[in-house]
Amino acid sequence: MMSDIETMMTELGRRARGAARALALVPDKTRSNGLRAAAQAIRIDARHIAAANAQDMEAAEAKGLSGAMLDRLRLDAGRIEAMAKGLEDIAHLPDPLGRTLAEWTRPNGMVISRVAVPLGVIGIIYESRPNVTADAAGLCIKSGNATILRGGSESFHTSRTIMTALVGGLTAVGLPAEAVQMVPTTDREAVGAMLRLSDYIDVIVPRGGKSLVARVVEESRIPLFQHLEGICHTYVDAAADLEMAKTIVLNAKMRRTGICGATETLLVDRACASTHLQPLVAMLIDAGCEVRGDEAVLAADPRAVPASEEDWITEYLDAVISAKVVDGVAGAVDHVNTHGSHHTEAIVTEDAAAAEAFLQGCDSAIVLWNASTQFADGGEFGMGAEIGISTGKMHARGPVGVEQLTTFKYLVRGSGQVRPG
Amino acid sequence: MMSDIETMMTELGRRARGAARALALVPDKTRSNGLRAAAQAIRIDARHIAAANAQDMEAAEAKGLSGAMLDRLRLDAGRIEAMAKGLEDIAHLPDPLGRTLAEWTRPNGMVISRVAVPLGVIGIIYESRPNVTADAAGLCIKSGNATILRGGSESFHTSRTIMTALVGGLTAVGLPAEAVQMVPTTDREAVGAMLRLSDYIDVIVPRGGKSLVARVVEESRIPLFQHLEGICHTYVDAAADLEMAKTIVLNAKMRRTGICGATETLLVDRACASTHLQPLVAMLIDAGCEVRGDEAVLAADPRAVPASEEDWITEYLDAVISAKVVDGVAGAVDHVNTHGSHHTEAIVTEDAAAAEAFLQGCDSAIVLWNASTQFADGGEFGMGAEIGISTGKMHARGPVGVEQLTTFKYLVRGSGQVRPG
Repeated sequence: MMSDIETMMTELGRRARGAARALALVPDKTRSNGLRAAAQAIRIDARHIAAANAQDMEAAEAKGLSGAMLDRLRLDAGRIEAMAKGLEDIAHLPDPLGRTLAEWTRPNGMVISRVAVPLGVIGIIYESRPNVTADAAGLCIKSGNATILRGGSESFHTSRTIMTALVGGLTAVGLPAEAVQMVPTTDREAVGAMLRLSDYIDVIVPRGGKSLVARVVEESRIPLFQHLEGICHTYVDAAADLEMAKTIVLNAKMRRTGICGATETLLVDRACASTHLQPLVAMLIDAGCEVRGDEAVLAADPRAVPASEEDWITEYLDAVISAKVVDGVAGAVDHVNTHGSHHTEAIVTEDAAAAEAFLQGCDSAIVLWNASTQFADGGEFGMGAEIGISTGKMHARGPVGVEQLTTFKYLVRGSGQVRPG
Repeated sequence: MMSDIETMMTELGRRARGAARALALVPDKTRSNGLRAAAQAIRIDARHIAAANAQDMEAAEAKGLSGAMLDRLRLDAGRIEAMAKGLEDIAHLPDPLGRTLAEWTRPNGMVISRVAVPLGVIGIIYESRPNVTADAAGLCIKSGNATILRGGSESFHTSRTIMTALVGGLTAVGLPAEAVQMVPTTDREAVGAMLRLSDYIDVIVPRGGKSLVARVVEESRIPLFQHLEGICHTYVDAAADLEMAKTIVLNAKMRRTGICGATETLLVDRACASTHLQPLVAMLIDAGCEVRGDEAVLAADPRAVPASEEDWITEYLDAVISAKVVDGVAGAVDHVNTHGSHHTEAIVTEDAAAAEAFLQGCDSAIVLWNASTQFADGGEFGMGAEIGISTGKMHARGPVGVEQLTTFKYLVRGSGQVRPG
């Protein structure tokens, strides 16, 4: 027997599948016009959205949520306008559907094309940021996918109000109302039921902290676009220009410490440790960063503290960095592949051969040469917007933008061919 | 506490990961030479392989296995040579690695490339066909992946002998011995342990009957390339040329009834039922095919038998077809998307607009216009060889050849760029 929540989730799934079938055949112009209408609807409903947000904020404050969580939850007029503008930016992206990814003719005359089509139904599970409602739904609609959203309980009223405005815009241009649906309960059982809806949901994108992602990874019967952690490394090679290394390391660690592309471990080539290690460590500590290091690092600056084994596998998301000396590119690659999270790594060097060895050797979604790990972002990659970063190897890797929200099918055009033999 | 089998499987996984890291950096020439050496080793060991196969065959006969299973298990000199030749054919394919899939330059001067790299470690779970050992391992090696093979207990000795020859060839050119490993036990617990090795195996390919695939789908914590069933449809449109329709339908159903691309359901447009249905049904029955139909089909030929609801969702893999009349392309697409398995469908029509509507509307990996569904095959697509057909939407869809056994990473080449803001 299915529980009430399972029955409800199955019904949501069934409706989403129907909407996805319809959306797949809608031209880009209509999908993009729907997003523009949704942006306008959000602007028109801005006061209503702000009121719902005030209600959520009040409840969150009463529950004693942390300042950081309250900040993620808060929507002011600027953030509401940014959501609307974000939908218009997504509308403006090139159509990711219908692209011919490959085409060839067989000796028997059949023409085979691999053509981009939507994935189908995308489930988004997120926490307190209510703006994910518009961003994620927008990317899904642009790529012809139906969406089932499951927001955090703290942002429930805000998210529902945003969704209502958004759906109003979409239906105004004739798109199906079920193209974007929200799980109408904050019951945690609904998440479990959602993760088992493999007949109706093609991919799940968990957006939130490590505990949310870990739960989804553990329970999901559906493919995921996710990264659990961004334990990103910057390796300063013997052939690095010290000034460039300083600029890149400072930016990679300290520009924003809370994003997944922030560097968490500094690796310095033993061959340049005597000249490069001290200035790099001193610079970081002077900038307010705690440095946890191996013996060489401790010797370089008395303000550094000892690193434990745990430090090499820790994503601080804070003004803390682990640092150690390694034996050249091979030592750096070995450390990265052993302790990293396959997200983003950078090498600083003037030696092209060392750079290539690092680029090829690191088993990570993004590997940079002479640039900051903080570029790990769909916008910075020129993809327009991203629904997240994937460290998986299947289908989508790195930033997940509208192109990554498509799959393909083979269309074969013949003239009566049958298979011999 | 891990069981002994879990400990053993984890160790296999750890070694495979190490081999995969090494293989990823090996040039195509070495990988292909390894496959050629493996082909030679199989030829040299042919008598040894035949002897092991005789031992497996004797045990299988004593167990009373069916004739079809015995045939799958049997290796004669021709089949052993075909395995060796298959490895040489794979060696000859273009290198799937290192391809630049996309490249662009950002306004800040960073050059971003999306480059093909191996998936890593691929697990193959198969049943009685021992030649899968060479075919699957060959495709994995060509694409730079390490493999863990888990063959059926019936073919255990044969598969081990093939693997030993194969690994001898690979190591002769300097490839790691752990590039191809076989689970050294027929204990079913090993399959369960393998399906949980998500730290060490990147994708699992189950090759076998529906019950094997269903078990793997149910238990796996690892992404799969698989299809459970090929419930393929051929739709004969009102604008079909009757002679072409007859040729295609006969081939699609009867060329080989046991393959996944065989048509299992014939759909005929109501608008041409009066002229096309009777000849198509009569032709199939004359060819020895049982036809299970709706009322229109029963009226068209007294030899047809009534179809039950179950027939529309049955993969016969036999000389049986279900048949019904539908209302045009829309009715056909609706039937396919409701009852099909997202594998392969065909439309026969001279009307280009009807064909496009069918090609776009069917939510299937392969959709053909005026050609037989039996073309659903990597070899027929010109991909050289395939490890299977995928009906999943993630990563690989349709035939899975060496290109589909790769993923990609982003390489970013800069000159000191840091992220502003």
